[in-house]
Amino acid sequence: MVDAADYGFMAEALRLAERGLYTATPNPRVGCVIVKDGQIVGRGFHARAGGPHAEVVALQEAGERARGATAYVSLEPCSHHGRTPPCAEALVAAGVGRVVAAMQDPNPLVAGRGLERLRQGGIPVECGVLEAEAVALNIGFVSRMTRGRPWVRMKIAASLDGKTALLDGRSQWITSEAARRDAHHWRARACAILTGIGTVREDDPQLTVRHVATPRQPLRVVVDSRLETPVGARVLAGGPVLIACAREDREAMDRLRAKGAEILVLPNASGKVDLPGLFRELGRRGVNEVLVEAGVKLNGSLLREALVDELVVYLAPCLLGDAARGMAALPPLRDLAARLRLRVRELRQVGEDLRLLAEVSQAAGVCPAWDSE
Amino acid sequence: MVDAADYGFMAEALRLAERGLYTATPNPRVGCVIVKDGQIVGRGFHARAGGPHAEVVALQEAGERARGATAYVSLEPCSHHGRTPPCAEALVAAGVGRVVAAMQDPNPLVAGRGLERLRQGGIPVECGVLEAEAVALNIGFVSRMTRGRPWVRMKIAASLDGKTALLDGRSQWITSEAARRDAHHWRARACAILTGIGTVREDDPQLTVRHVATPRQPLRVVVDSRLETPVGARVLAGGPVLIACAREDREAMDRLRAKGAEILVLPNASGKVDLPGLFRELGRRGVNEVLVEAGVKLNGSLLREALVDELVVYLAPCLLGDAARGMAALPPLRDLAARLRLRVRELRQVGEDLRLLAEVSQAAGVCPAWDSE
Repeated sequence: MVDAADYGFMAEALRLAERGLYTATPNPRVGCVIVKDGQIVGRGFHARAGGPHAEVVALQEAGERARGATAYVSLEPCSHHGRTPPCAEALVAAGVGRVVAAMQDPNPLVAGRGLERLRQGGIPVECGVLEAEAVALNIGFVSRMTRGRPWVRMKIAASLDGKTALLDGRSQWITSEAARRDAHHWRARACAILTGIGTVREDDPQLTVRHVATPRQPLRVVVDSRLETPVGARVLAGGPVLIACAREDREAMDRLRAKGAEILVLPNASGKVDLPGLFRELGRRGVNEVLVEAGVKLNGSLLREALVDELVVYLAPCLLGDAARGMAALPPLRDLAARLRLRVRELRQVGEDLRLLAEVSQAAGVCPAWDSE
Repeated sequence: MVDAADYGFMAEALRLAERGLYTATPNPRVGCVIVKDGQIVGRGFHARAGGPHAEVVALQEAGERARGATAYVSLEPCSHHGRTPPCAEALVAAGVGRVVAAMQDPNPLVAGRGLERLRQGGIPVECGVLEAEAVALNIGFVSRMTRGRPWVRMKIAASLDGKTALLDGRSQWITSEAARRDAHHWRARACAILTGIGTVREDDPQLTVRHVATPRQPLRVVVDSRLETPVGARVLAGGPVLIACAREDREAMDRLRAKGAEILVLPNASGKVDLPGLFRELGRRGVNEVLVEAGVKLNGSLLREALVDELVVYLAPCLLGDAARGMAALPPLRDLAARLRLRVRELRQVGEDLRLLAEVSQAAGVCPAWDSE
């Protein structure tokens, strides 16, 4: 049985979890509150991998008051010995009287065992309070655990007629400064930022987080089939960089490694970078959320291969006209019914631009009309 | 001196004026309330050309109570003998004690003379209450009176990536039924609907008002340089049609005239239809608002010639990809600074689509980068 108060306390646990938004990776963002007699007596969130889990922090604050209290956790407490001892044990040991969880841990190492351990310890357990919100907060972690690949969010800045650059590639700047600053929040929460060699050559972006305070810079990943990234490219400075290529070119590899880049040779049958393979590899490395900031070509490839989960589109109030570059290079559709459908989740104004969040409808998946290419 | 009550009564006059939204053309939409001792004692609006003016209707309802009352009019009362006697005279004759107008009549036959006539009759006059709202309601009439051409509103239905049709022209349907029904409101308030021969051939639209109750069908105008409108085109049925062409082709003209179309030969120096000339001609015919429902080519020409005042964009939550057709064929921009800037006035959800109203910034005007074409 859950009541309105349970929802309120879980909302607080989720707010705490959000404080790990930029830093918890590769772990999930988790928050916990301990409630005794209707009062919060302990709060915790997971700040970074290797640091204490949310439950441990909250139990520590609660101390003796944890006995008989209710613990609200935004994710099922862990049951396995990882870098820290299992939280389920800690809750049992602290003598909490009840545990409310927002969702099961999708980690196959846990997957219900944490809740089971609590029940074995005689603690009544409820699961599923604010579950949708909890899943949304850790959508990347859920994706990695259940699909073996990150959640892929594609950022696009365009004019109202869907143009992202002039024909020669110039795109600085279509959207307003407010929109460009806003976009750094998506970078800060991403574990990796993905771009293509075209963008590296045309915009020479740093792809670092600058307008948001964060102690962590995401991994930068460049899809560069022929290893053409210039050694002077700004993306090579300022933190770890992974270059995915499609052929072994010792000389180019040495040159780029000397600049600190890691090279991954991942060819597919057509001699391009194996994009699904790249995402599987990123998943293996603990990347939960990828932010794609690429041009029309790589955007098109990713969409065509059904590798994009979500779009963040900034639309500037202007028209560039049909001669400019579009959002995504996709082969001609055979039929309007084959269009890539989106589900708009949020719409707001950012500066003078519009920001739209949309999920790519799973139903569309790999689109038959595009398979024929 | 005006006070809050004046604003409230003027808002009511504007609401009344709106009741003539679909029918007052070529006249402006005008509303009037007569207020005696804080009570509305007469209401009127102008329903159709040739019918009584708003003031006359309101005075009639007020009767003797008009003496010493305040008359609120959304547009300066007329001073000239048109199809009806001047309203300024009627207000003086009725003995009203005060007149509050939202705006001066932009009609050069009036242009302050109505207010002047009232003052000469000893009536205190205020002008400018809710002026912006009053101008917006009659933006087409104001445009015609001050610029000699209609207000041009371009409707575009597109995917989120700015695509309006597949490469072969198929566009039925990108947006939802709700959006398509909503679009009939713009048709209903327009005096004329403008399209191009490409749309006639590919979509064969009727361009009539169907999902909105109205006693009036707008004029349909087809830009068809070479008179290629098929005699079986649906646009030729269901009301008056004007075809603007660029060359005299007796045979084609006779054929289309036999189907009831009026032909206007309006060539420009490049052998296309003289679009500014067409709008001047529509202005001469009393067309206040034009709704453009055309394809990528005519849209591009109209934007390039700086003939578009406002965009109504319906964006559907889907992507069609770069191989599809865009919103407007425009020559390549030399520079991002030369982009066509818009000012977003309104944004809302219609069914599953977004609807965005945006004014074309006057500052852009004829864009230098496009002039060079």
